[in-house]
Amino acid sequence: MTWDFSTEPEFEAKLEWMRDFVRDEVYPLEVLDADEAGFMRIVRSLQAEVKRQQLWATHLPPELGGQGYGQVKLGLMHEIEGASVWAPIVFGNQAPDSGNSEILAHFGTPAQKERWLHPLLEGRLRSAFSMTEPDNAGSDPTLLSTAAVLKGNEWVINGHKWFTSNGMIADFLIAMVVTDPDAGPYERASMIIVPADAAGLRKVRNIPTMAGEHERFGYGHAEILYEDVRVPADNLLGKRGAGFLIAQARLGPGRIHHCMRWLGQARRAFDMLCERALQREAFGKKLASHETVQNWIADSAAEMQAARLMTLHAAWIIDTQGAAAARREISLIKFFGAKVLHDVIDRAIQVHGSLGYSADLPLEEMYRHARAARMYDGPDEVHRVSVARQILAGYQAPEGMWPREHVPTRREAAQLKFAALLEAATTDV
Amino acid sequence: MTWDFSTEPEFEAKLEWMRDFVRDEVYPLEVLDADEAGFMRIVRSLQAEVKRQQLWATHLPPELGGQGYGQVKLGLMHEIEGASVWAPIVFGNQAPDSGNSEILAHFGTPAQKERWLHPLLEGRLRSAFSMTEPDNAGSDPTLLSTAAVLKGNEWVINGHKWFTSNGMIADFLIAMVVTDPDAGPYERASMIIVPADAAGLRKVRNIPTMAGEHERFGYGHAEILYEDVRVPADNLLGKRGAGFLIAQARLGPGRIHHCMRWLGQARRAFDMLCERALQREAFGKKLASHETVQNWIADSAAEMQAARLMTLHAAWIIDTQGAAAARREISLIKFFGAKVLHDVIDRAIQVHGSLGYSADLPLEEMYRHARAARMYDGPDEVHRVSVARQILAGYQAPEGMWPREHVPTRREAAQLKFAALLEAATTDV
Amino acid sequence: MTWDFSTEPEFEAKLEWMRDFVRDEVYPLEVLDADEAGFMRIVRSLQAEVKRQQLWATHLPPELGGQGYGQVKLGLMHEIEGASVWAPIVFGNQAPDSGNSEILAHFGTPAQKERWLHPLLEGRLRSAFSMTEPDNAGSDPTLLSTAAVLKGNEWVINGHKWFTSNGMIADFLIAMVVTDPDAGPYERASMIIVPADAAGLRKVRNIPTMAGEHERFGYGHAEILYEDVRVPADNLLGKRGAGFLIAQARLGPGRIHHCMRWLGQARRAFDMLCERALQREAFGKKLASHETVQNWIADSAAEMQAARLMTLHAAWIIDTQGAAAARREISLIKFFGAKVLHDVIDRAIQVHGSLGYSADLPLEEMYRHARAARMYDGPDEVHRVSVARQILAGYQAPEGMWPREHVPTRREAAQLKFAALLEAATTDV
Amino acid sequence: MTWDFSTEPEFEAKLEWMRDFVRDEVYPLEVLDADEAGFMRIVRSLQAEVKRQQLWATHLPPELGGQGYGQVKLGLMHEIEGASVWAPIVFGNQAPDSGNSEILAHFGTPAQKERWLHPLLEGRLRSAFSMTEPDNAGSDPTLLSTAAVLKGNEWVINGHKWFTSNGMIADFLIAMVVTDPDAGPYERASMIIVPADAAGLRKVRNIPTMAGEHERFGYGHAEILYEDVRVPADNLLGKRGAGFLIAQARLGPGRIHHCMRWLGQARRAFDMLCERALQREAFGKKLASHETVQNWIADSAAEMQAARLMTLHAAWIIDTQGAAAARREISLIKFFGAKVLHDVIDRAIQVHGSLGYSADLPLEEMYRHARAARMYDGPDEVHRVSVARQILAGYQAPEGMWPREHVPTRREAAQLKFAALLEAATTDV
Repeated sequence: MTWDFSTEPEFEAKLEWMRDFVRDEVYPLEVLDADEAGFMRIVRSLQAEVKRQQLWATHLPPELGGQGYGQVKLGLMHEIEGASVWAPIVFGNQAPDSGNSEILAHFGTPAQKERWLHPLLEGRLRSAFSMTEPDNAGSDPTLLSTAAVLKGNEWVINGHKWFTSNGMIADFLIAMVVTDPDAGPYERASMIIVPADAAGLRKVRNIPTMAGEHERFGYGHAEILYEDVRVPADNLLGKRGAGFLIAQARLGPGRIHHCMRWLGQARRAFDMLCERALQREAFGKKLASHETVQNWIADSAAEMQAARLMTLHAAWIIDTQGAAAARREISLIKFFGAKVLHDVIDRAIQVHGSLGYSADLPLEEMYRHARAARMYDGPDEVHRVSVARQILAGYQAPEGMWPREHVPTRREAAQLKFAALLEAATTDV
Repeated sequence: MTWDFSTEPEFEAKLEWMRDFVRDEVYPLEVLDADEAGFMRIVRSLQAEVKRQQLWATHLPPELGGQGYGQVKLGLMHEIEGASVWAPIVFGNQAPDSGNSEILAHFGTPAQKERWLHPLLEGRLRSAFSMTEPDNAGSDPTLLSTAAVLKGNEWVINGHKWFTSNGMIADFLIAMVVTDPDAGPYERASMIIVPADAAGLRKVRNIPTMAGEHERFGYGHAEILYEDVRVPADNLLGKRGAGFLIAQARLGPGRIHHCMRWLGQARRAFDMLCERALQREAFGKKLASHETVQNWIADSAAEMQAARLMTLHAAWIIDTQGAAAARREISLIKFFGAKVLHDVIDRAIQVHGSLGYSADLPLEEMYRHARAARMYDGPDEVHRVSVARQILAGYQAPEGMWPREHVPTRREAAQLKFAALLEAATTDV
Repeated sequence: MTWDFSTEPEFEAKLEWMRDFVRDEVYPLEVLDADEAGFMRIVRSLQAEVKRQQLWATHLPPELGGQGYGQVKLGLMHEIEGASVWAPIVFGNQAPDSGNSEILAHFGTPAQKERWLHPLLEGRLRSAFSMTEPDNAGSDPTLLSTAAVLKGNEWVINGHKWFTSNGMIADFLIAMVVTDPDAGPYERASMIIVPADAAGLRKVRNIPTMAGEHERFGYGHAEILYEDVRVPADNLLGKRGAGFLIAQARLGPGRIHHCMRWLGQARRAFDMLCERALQREAFGKKLASHETVQNWIADSAAEMQAARLMTLHAAWIIDTQGAAAARREISLIKFFGAKVLHDVIDRAIQVHGSLGYSADLPLEEMYRHARAARMYDGPDEVHRVSVARQILAGYQAPEGMWPREHVPTRREAAQLKFAALLEAATTDV
Repeated sequence: MTWDFSTEPEFEAKLEWMRDFVRDEVYPLEVLDADEAGFMRIVRSLQAEVKRQQLWATHLPPELGGQGYGQVKLGLMHEIEGASVWAPIVFGNQAPDSGNSEILAHFGTPAQKERWLHPLLEGRLRSAFSMTEPDNAGSDPTLLSTAAVLKGNEWVINGHKWFTSNGMIADFLIAMVVTDPDAGPYERASMIIVPADAAGLRKVRNIPTMAGEHERFGYGHAEILYEDVRVPADNLLGKRGAGFLIAQARLGPGRIHHCMRWLGQARRAFDMLCERALQREAFGKKLASHETVQNWIADSAAEMQAARLMTLHAAWIIDTQGAAAARREISLIKFFGAKVLHDVIDRAIQVHGSLGYSADLPLEEMYRHARAARMYDGPDEVHRVSVARQILAGYQAPEGMWPREHVPTRREAAQLKFAALLEAATTDV
């Protein structure tokens, strides 16, 4: 039967294991007060368990250790990982390394793979992704200004980036730079691999944000200055001018993963909401018996269900028709899902009152992180416009929907059609 | 692969035929200015075509002429029918006859089927469904007050109903009445078949509503008085006290059909929205180039997609696990879908300006009908509460989520766990 | 004390009288099933009572019988009139005659006043206002296409209008026409008085709309064709090219009246909501004890209060600084108020269930009328953009809000300022 | 004239001074990286300037140094102070000292004033307010559980509080405790002054919250254990059992101040929104030219205007009719204003993109603080229910609004009334 929403039993068993594992082993990491060494020791023991379960870095192609799962299955896994900020690192999926390893795998030369990809996968190198610029709206590709000029056998890079994920601790950065300023808006940029110790590369700071202290051990979003940074011409990743193409390839399925992780976050908040509602009493009855709380639960359930089915549907289109065919669906879930994420966490906080506002529970951190979801991977506003344009491309302005020349009413106009129709009907029956 | 959102090609061909047929042959009925005889002549010719395509009354069990389609397929068909108010009558699915024929088929005795069901299916009788009461909130079964008392071999019925669909023109009514006032809240009522010409049955009027003139030819929602109406004891439909059970069986899949029809309505409004946006200009550019309109298009697309997937998901649960398993999902789509329906039509009207407000286009009628969707089949508010209760039943109040006895912070508490964890990790790796 | 929200006692007494009068004498008109003659006989007896109270046509200047009330007082009166669709006619304020008499009073020549204004005020003539065109977005003045060309001593008018208020029954129309196509966008149009019996003027029909049957006795919104209609050059109203200026003068205070009437409508719906909530029971308690209904009441109260204070504030600006100074405030209340109107009526309907949907109560008619409020007098979308532009004109792009040259953090930058500040503080205290 | 929204010129001059002073002298405090001593040295120099302007602690009665301003004027001042988190301390209005000094002034004995109030006003003591409990919903007075028992000449206090403002640094706490457990729900509690060094008083910690690092120098919301804390019987503040009464007196005008401060916050965010919109470009034009941003500006302007007028209206009721008369209005602005605050800041962040999410701008901190506004001073949900109850108390269930006995339609029923009316009209005219 088509329209089948079921999950294969053997895969469902894996998901079940993941759910237990994340709840029992990964949640505690959130409140672990250890130094980096102690923290990483535990993380590595959990990673080892994940590898034993053959669930490590499943987004990678099989030749690099992935399981060949399509986006639907990856999505269902990301949903579970999303419940905790530390799960992606435990499962080998943490941004930006996961995305970087994907594009290295797909677009890298054998030498690049040897030099950067394999050490990255083995955890011996860490990577950053350097695209956003403080001076320019990131959603508009024509505004990108960091430039690389080919001088002899070297790219000379100048520019100013920020929100470069893991920029302070990375061993290399993948930088999006303008190499062909006179090309069409989507062919101006290229990706170039930049070693973190290149001369002229200045790591200014980790930018303090609403996300706050979570970004410990140097993780975070860095401000980076490129001042006459020189890298070998061979560090070009993929073709010259293919920067946006690669970025899209990186971001498309990545958005599925984001949305599914958001759903995992939302589900965890929702669970807390329901449990608290059953625990707490006000004005003579449990919060769970107050209609306002019941409305929140019902609306949250509907919205999470909506976002979930839409995301899995988009994943299914990628799996069956390719990422390009899913462009509209991916934009839809981007802005729809980001709102669901916020709203569910917001209600969970309100049900918890001052406890929810406090850092004694993870909700307030989830709330702060959720605010970013409406911006990264393109602000919601840009996705809305993009969706509308794609949809409108499938329509044409009507002719004669409302014929004006003779000022007939629609009813009058229709009579003409019905003259024949009535006649036919009379003879027909 | 599981999670399959595709449609079988041969069934897709049927849907394609339906789409063309509804647009080309059924839409014109909306503006046909004929008397009842002329109107019905055309309708019958269209019905004949539907029967030739084996798409007539597909909700019925195969032995009564249905195709054995499950709810997913019926849903996809209802989506197409929903685009026009006249499509259900053309496809043999019009309320309340469709629901009435279903419960007669499932719960009727052979004699009842002979006397009422077959003539109904053949179009020789028309039926009404008489449940709502003006004095009582319909959503609360304990408030039902129309009563039937068994005297000798007859039920004697007294009470006051309204919004009895097709009550003025029906040949018989299926009335929901209290037969066992002392039973539990869901076992008090029964369904009884009442001939329209029974003495004491007073057809007061068709109630004028926001739906307006569309309800022509006597169709409409009637106010009915039962004053010592006597019907044979054999007219009991199903078991005594099974009224709510039967009503649920009638309403459950019916809600799927409603929601899918709403989506058909919404899709038609959305098409008009997009076409108008490409046609009309204001302030130097097409409406389609105004961001506000683009936002409406994107939000409408997301919401329709959400409602559609949720409804088909609920249908799939009915098909694979039975209607009872889908109770929560059906409530979700009831209130989620009713809002989507309204919002999309509302935006389509706004894009059309005064033309959208005028009756020259079908939008204003769709808008008026859409307002009822938040009330019938249970007001949205009742479904929200019902969903919340079902969900909460799956949770327990936590113990020790935030252990109060020792006033530890959550972070402190977690350290205890990590002592062992750190130790294990140290030895483990 | 400034910031005084009180009402003068003697004026409050008049308002009190109006409230009683509208409820007791005008509400019944809504359900009066009389022919036009009978209906108007009653209306005239009510109008006589209004005149005795010196409350007739109070929007007019004192020399034409008004009381010299400013917009705040007129607003408070319109709030009361708004509760019933028939109140404006009883109080001599009905559109479009009220607006037409105002512009004739302000811009008409003595001869025009003699010929059109005085008979209008005496009820011997009826007027129409003919601006909207089916082919063009009414909010964009550059699109107006109905044209008048001066040939000899006559204007020759050609064009197509619709939603011409009372166009079918009017004795004369005030038409907005392009007289100077090459002038600036706001100087292209003029207003011309057109007798209804002018040759070439074709009254096509009253346009059926969502507003429905209320528009009885020929009242309504007409479609009008101007085909070589000739009127004397003297029929120009005001200066050539002043059409938009006059329209603004007409619409500005008129929007205050609209918004206050909306509040009267909303208040009536709100009263019904509260009363029904206290009357009706569901699930073991009054609707008034259900939190969902309580939330609706609280939100409605807040929104009505907001809209009311904003509208009276705008009226106060007109009274103290002139209509031009209130342009932004008037746009604000236009879109804010229209939403409040809809939302309150919508909740009132929902609380009444099927009764609210039925025409047994006035709510469903109020709902249909409310839908138009988001379109007439300029669609909400245009007012939003207009407000934003006015506001943005008061700002400048910042320089150095976030100085980029040296990539300092905001905190670093501030230290410079504080060096001096700390020093000063040390010596200062 | 009544309905006067103007501000007295001499007071407007003071406000003007405040606006300049806050922007030029107080904003910089937000980014001052000084130790407490350095920080307080600057603060004191600013406070001295405020005192010179006679704007210090204006909420106090004149005998304690206030200016005798009513709530309208105080509100206008708080609006300006609200723009920066540090302004209240500079103007002598910082919570919880301001509220504590007010209740000491109103309810304290001469000895209490001597001992606690005067040192507090002189800045020699700091105070805390200790009401919220972790185990009980704060909005429900019947749940308060911290208890004080009178043993001999001492109160013995046991219980668990949290979110005790400034609990870690205070010299004394005003604690809300149950003294009369068997009294009516609003007469159970009393307020008692507790010296911070009382034996048995355990300051557990400052609770980490979403508000984050701002709460420096020990400011913050503390968790406090009362374990057999003994204080003299004379430390009772006001009458025994008057705890809730005093809390209301403290919170009522305090909510006006909160709401006005929120508006100051919102206004600052709005200014940043507009300025950024004019500065930043995307897709070929300034953000200010994008309709989505224009819609945000227009909606923000409308909502801030609404909240502002509502708050000043509530203040005016307090000034003219007393705080009790303003109970409903105060609840309205509580929940209405908290949403406006959030929504405006949220839009300002979105316009700034990642810069808005970063701590380089104050927006992200404002956003985190705004989230608490929906909880403190009673969660919005409780205020909504309270408003609804107050409103419903003014209504009665209708009789005969829809007379059922004879099943007439409303139209039929009205005809009876009109028989006489028509007759009267005939003779009357």
